[in-house]
Amino acid sequence: MTGSAQHTRAEAAEPYEVFHTDCPARDVVDHVTSRWGVWVLISLRNKDLRFFELRESIRGISEKMLAQTLRALVQDGLVWREVEPTTPPQVTYGLTEFGRDIGEPLSELFDRITQRLSPSNAG
Amino acid sequence: MTGSAQHTRAEAAEPYEVFHTDCPARDVVDHVTSRWGVWVLISLRNKDLRFFELRESIRGISEKMLAQTLRALVQDGLVWREVEPTTPPQVTYGLTEFGRDIGEPLSELFDRITQRLSPSNAG
Repeated sequence: MTGSAQHTRAEAAEPYEVFHTDCPARDVVDHVTSRWGVWVLISLRNKDLRFFELRESIRGISEKMLAQTLRALVQDGLVWREVEPTTPPQVTYGLTEFGRDIGEPLSELFDRITQRLSPSNAG
Repeated sequence: MTGSAQHTRAEAAEPYEVFHTDCPARDVVDHVTSRWGVWVLISLRNKDLRFFELRESIRGISEKMLAQTLRALVQDGLVWREVEPTTPPQVTYGLTEFGRDIGEPLSELFDRITQRLSPSNAG
């Protein structure tokens, strides 16, 4: 009984190394699926956006949280950041190739949830 | 009813209504992509698991957080919960049809991130 339980455990942990806390991919998955990361990535799928445009499109996010989220996504190589040297400087964000690659299944996930919960599917 | 404020909100909401804080789909997206929700859903894609097996497979999660995460996912209709009336009772979790539907793009997202960050792709 003890032996078989351990066997089951090993199997359960196996398919994805990323389940381990020391896997670098886990950080990226955590950022992508963070409280706000998912919305930033989906917002940027349609077009590049300025900071304030992002903030407008994602209801409920604070400036501080948006800045933090963007910093993590830029660091992960998912989002690029471009500063125009105007007064005041204008900052634009967009998806990198990696970001686009990730944005695809993220949008699919998103679409499936909204489809399932849309009023036409309810009741 | 503040008509103009509502109008602004409606505009910003395009193309995804779910960006609204009052959209029910947003809660589900938040649960699916929560700190631990994503790992629970991916773990359960391979097979149904007991509580302790889930805990073993997701490194770093506390019992309290796992219980909270599972409760939200069961409430959303993504995960089912079955209690066997043994002593002690054995609780098993698995994906509902909705959960499987969501698990697909989630796994795809996950695979793309791990592929991109795998050692063979680095440097």
